[in-house]
Parts: sequence; structure tokens; C-alpha cells
Amino acid sequence: MRATVMFGAGDVRIENVPDARLIEPTDALLVVTHAAICGSDLWPYKGMPPSEEGRRMGHEFIGLVEAVGAEVRKIKVGDLVAAPFAWSDGTCIYCQEGLQTSCLHGGFWGGTELDGGQGEAVRVPQADGTLFKLPVGRDDALMPSLLTLTDVMATGHHAALSARVGPGKSVAVVGGGAVGLCGVIAAKRLGAGQIILLDRHADRIALAKEFGATDIVSERGEEAVARVRELTKGLGVQSVLECVGYAESMLTALSIARPGGAVGRVGVPQAEVMPAINSFFGNITIAGGPAPARAYIEPLLPDVLEGRIQPGRVFDWTGSLEGVPDGYRAMNERKAIKALVKF
Amino acid sequence: MRATVMFGAGDVRIENVPDARLIEPTDALLVVTHAAICGSDLWPYKGMPPSEEGRRMGHEFIGLVEAVGAEVRKIKVGDLVAAPFAWSDGTCIYCQEGLQTSCLHGGFWGGTELDGGQGEAVRVPQADGTLFKLPVGRDDALMPSLLTLTDVMATGHHAALSARVGPGKSVAVVGGGAVGLCGVIAAKRLGAGQIILLDRHADRIALAKEFGATDIVSERGEEAVARVRELTKGLGVQSVLECVGYAESMLTALSIARPGGAVGRVGVPQAEVMPAINSFFGNITIAGGPAPARAYIEPLLPDVLEGRIQPGRVFDWTGSLEGVPDGYRAMNERKAIKALVKF
Repeated sequence: MRATVMFGAGDVRIENVPDARLIEPTDALLVVTHAAICGSDLWPYKGMPPSEEGRRMGHEFIGLVEAVGAEVRKIKVGDLVAAPFAWSDGTCIYCQEGLQTSCLHGGFWGGTELDGGQGEAVRVPQADGTLFKLPVGRDDALMPSLLTLTDVMATGHHAALSARVGPGKSVAVVGGGAVGLCGVIAAKRLGAGQIILLDRHADRIALAKEFGATDIVSERGEEAVARVRELTKGLGVQSVLECVGYAESMLTALSIARPGGAVGRVGVPQAEVMPAINSFFGNITIAGGPAPARAYIEPLLPDVLEGRIQPGRVFDWTGSLEGVPDGYRAMNERKAIKALVKF
Repeated sequence: MRATVMFGAGDVRIENVPDARLIEPTDALLVVTHAAICGSDLWPYKGMPPSEEGRRMGHEFIGLVEAVGAEVRKIKVGDLVAAPFAWSDGTCIYCQEGLQTSCLHGGFWGGTELDGGQGEAVRVPQADGTLFKLPVGRDDALMPSLLTLTDVMATGHHAALSARVGPGKSVAVVGGGAVGLCGVIAAKRLGAGQIILLDRHADRIALAKEFGATDIVSERGEEAVARVRELTKGLGVQSVLECVGYAESMLTALSIARPGGAVGRVGVPQAEVMPAINSFFGNITIAGGPAPARAYIEPLLPDVLEGRIQPGRVFDWTGSLEGVPDGYRAMNERKAIKALVKF
């Protein structure tokens, strides 16, 4: 079968790989119908050391179940299912708590051991725990929005929950990529009174305003902090969604949170450490991490199905599997916010 | 009047200072009856650069109101009152939220501008917001426990709340000083199912066991982490109370929290940065900071008055004002857990 393999920084190819097949009795075999390229795929795209073996890519996908192992009970052949960016058994202590990204018997797609979502088919471990059956057909117009539930919309929601967004609260979203934009949607959905987006790209800003951003801050560093304070009577915001992951963006996030506020961080940290002191004296809570997307599909689904939120609008590039390398390039050069792959 | 002044590392003296007096109409004048030496007083005791002017010390105290300014409404002459370690107006946006340590018109005792609690009298700014009237007389046997509500018991409680301690939860307390011991009390009071103290001093361990610690870990670093994992089925604990503030203790705290858990940090950070990555992948929440003791006196008071908690037992050294330098020495040499000063 054909699948996306990354061999080093900037080197993404569509290759022939061994066909996906059932191995464990708890597996399902999925024929991929839709996949996405993630902002986090750009981290190795920027910096991965050369590798002969390569690394299978893609962790946001929807597909049709073609076969199931003998112990799969809930998922059936023919189901259209969403695969969150982590697979999980659905029964361990962490899954029961709704933290499927820490599943004791789970893991992440791709790499060198597992199939990735940016390929024709995927062996899905722990199918009953991992997969979520969608109540629509594969050609439904909502498919882009449904695809975001496997990662970016769930991640924006996780950032908002971690930052304790609630009715009437003042919120800042650091970074207007696909996750940040979904963070704006999530903040609006949870009733935020003020939503300040920190970003400087016109396409993202335009979309953020449509999603509910009330203010835009395009300054950086200390100037950005000063501007957010101006917009919040000198106080700072109650909730910050850190959707980037750089040391500088985390510093900004911690600096614009007001005392007693919270930073929900979902950008994968690119620095080993973060500031320890100012957040202490301000009693600022730092929460977040990889979003348990599996737990959030169900609560977010009605709003997608009934059109109250339209996170699929973050996709501004669509291509085929063979076009995936172009998708990476477009996202890396910031010519696209997020790429959708249709099979 | 006589008061404690620190002139540099290891140099604490009882000096003649200007008499405390009313200045602002919102002030009260307090004659101190009881004060304490705090673990955080030991930070300057270990490292303060020499100063000719010196620094007034003490931020945990109880006293009798001798005079009040023209705008003081609630506090009356003759009241026996507790002064939390931060003064606050009780009306600003943060005070209304119960975060009096971030009061827009508040501050901290001592230094070079204000009186400290380790002295005969104190000018109390924002008296109505700051002071809490106690329902007992100055010679009450509960006075040591009541004094802990101005800082260490409130701080242990804050660590426990920040770490989301609740019924049946697994808890670790890093550091068995007075705050850590009060953290054990707080965790027990909030219904924790397992309370692991990380400390190696026999006197503290003995008291912690009486307060409700179920397990003791005296190893350090990676060995401590391994031991906590052994005690928690390999998972780590749901709640960690970081009651020290060193980089190493924070690293330990983050390493023994299980995925989805929380670290409540109340030890003043002695390092500029803290680890950013493992806590991210485990969705570990980092919360806490200076405890809003003013907000906690009222909910904790009944348990003190009715003897259900006995935080005053952390005082194992008692002296007069003139003995305060000996109290610092005893605490610094770990010959005492915490020093009580009776006037």
C-alpha cells in the first residue's frame, strides 16, 4: 500500500509500504478516507535527523472498517470511524478517568512500529477503545469538521478546559494556527466574554474573528504583554490558551495571565524548562498536555453535527495522498493553515 | 519599641526601632502577643547580603488592637486578632475572589517600609480587610494552633487544595517542615486515602505519622521517585504538595505525580525555571503559590477550635522576643521545626 514516510527534515515521500493487516485480536483494519497534516508534524519536518528507515506519519484520520479481530466487540465492519491521535484500550485507570493519552496499554500512531494516518490503510490497536463510530456517511459535507475532532478541535477544547475558560471570562489565545483557531472556537463555545488572539498572520486573524475573537494582538514579547494588559484594565486575562510550544510563547502566556488565572498549554514544549517564579507569586495554574481527544469527541459532536461550530474551516488546503509532500511544504511556508488529505 | 531586624545572612538582632503608630485612617495599631519564625525567614537568613539599614522580620502574628484609624469599621480596640502573612483591603477584585495575596492595595510585612510581626507592635494597613478577630482570649491553650492559621496551616491547606486533594486520593507531601506537616494535616482533613511524606528527619516523621501520614519515603532524587511508585502500584500519586521550593524538590514532585495529577507548590521557588516537558506529556497540573491565608482562616477555624486539627504541635521551640536570634539558629540548624515567640 501507499503511505507517507518522513526520512528527515523537509524530506517527506509517499512510499510503498507493507499492507496494513490485523495482528492482534483486538485490532481493526481501517481503510482511510480522510486524513490531516498536523502542526506537530512540522516539528520533525523542521528538524528530524536523516533516517534510512524513515518514520510513518499521520495521526488524525477517519476511515471505513474493513476487518476486525476476534475480540473486537463494538466496532463492526463497514463502520465509518474517527481515530483520535492516541490509541487506547478504553478500560485502564486513565481511560476511565478520561485521560486516554496516558492509557497504560495505548500509544501513538506512526513512527517505526505502527501505521500512520497519512496512508491508505491503518492497523488500529485496541479498536474498541480507540475508535469512535460516526453517525454520517463518508461523503458528508461535515467531514472536515468531524476530522478536527481527532486532534485540533479536541486540542483547542482541552486548552480551554485546562485554562478554566467559563462564562464571561477574559481569555487569550497564544498562536493562531489550527489549534489556536480551534481554541478560539472552544473559548467562544464555553461562554468567554473576551477572546484575545495573539497572532500576526492575516488569514488566521480573519478566521479567528469569524470564530469569535474580540481582539487581536499582533505585537510580540513584552509589547504583546503590554497590549494585553491595556485590553484588560491592566490586569491580564483569566485564561490563556498556549497553542504554540516555544519558550517565548510560554513566557508570553505566563506573563499575560492575571493572578489566580490559568494557562492551558497544548503546544508541544520545545524547551526543556519554563519560568518558575512569576507564575508562583501570581498563583497562576499551569495545566494541559496532550488532549484526550477520545473523551471529547462525544461532547463536541452534537455542536458539529448541528453546525454550531465549524472547526473544519481551518482546512484551507486539500489534496490527495500523492500531494501530501506539497501539503507539508505549504504548511511549513505558512501558505496554508492546515492540510486535508482525501483518499 | 523592640523588634527583630536582619542585617545579613545569619545576622538577626533585636533592636530599638521607631514605635509603631497609626498613619493612614485605615490602619490599626496592634500590640503583638504571639509571633512565629517561618521557614521562609530562613531564605534571607541563609543568603541575605549585608545591609546597614536592615530588614524588619516576621509575618505570622496575633495581637491585641490598641488603636484604630478613623476609617476602620469592623476591627475594634481590644479585639484579639490574627494577621495573615499578607495584608489586603478585602474589597479589590482579587480579594473578592479570595486571592488576598494579590490584593491590588495590599502587600507583605516587614522589609524596610513596614513593621514586622517579630516585634512588640505593628502598624497594620487596611485593618478591616487584613485582620481576623479571634473568638478566644490571649491566654487560650489553642493560641499556637490559631497562630498557624496566619501562615503555615493556611499554606499547607493551600498546597492541598492546589493539588486537588480529595476523598480517597493518593497524596505525597514533599518536605516535612512546618508547612509540609500542615500539608499532611490538610490532606488528612480533606479525606486523602494515602499520605506519603518525603522527609528524613526523625522528629518530623514522628509528628507526620501522628498527623496522618501513612507512608514515609526517606530516599532522595530518583530513589525517592522509585519508592513512591512502589507504594502506588507503579502509578505515582494523584496529588503532590511541594513544600520546599528547591529545584530538586520540584523535580521530585513533578516526577511522582501520576498522569492527570496535580502538584500544589507552596515552597518559594529557589530556581528561576522548572521542568517543562514530562509534566506536559502527563497532563500534570502545576498550581499554587502564596496562600491566601486570610481566606482560609474562617473555614479552618472550627476544626482548630474543636480540636479536630492541632497544627500548633509544629511549634517545638518557644521563646521571648529577645530569644528570637536563638530561634532562627535552632530552625536553621534543624534543631527545631518551628519557633513560637511569646510576648
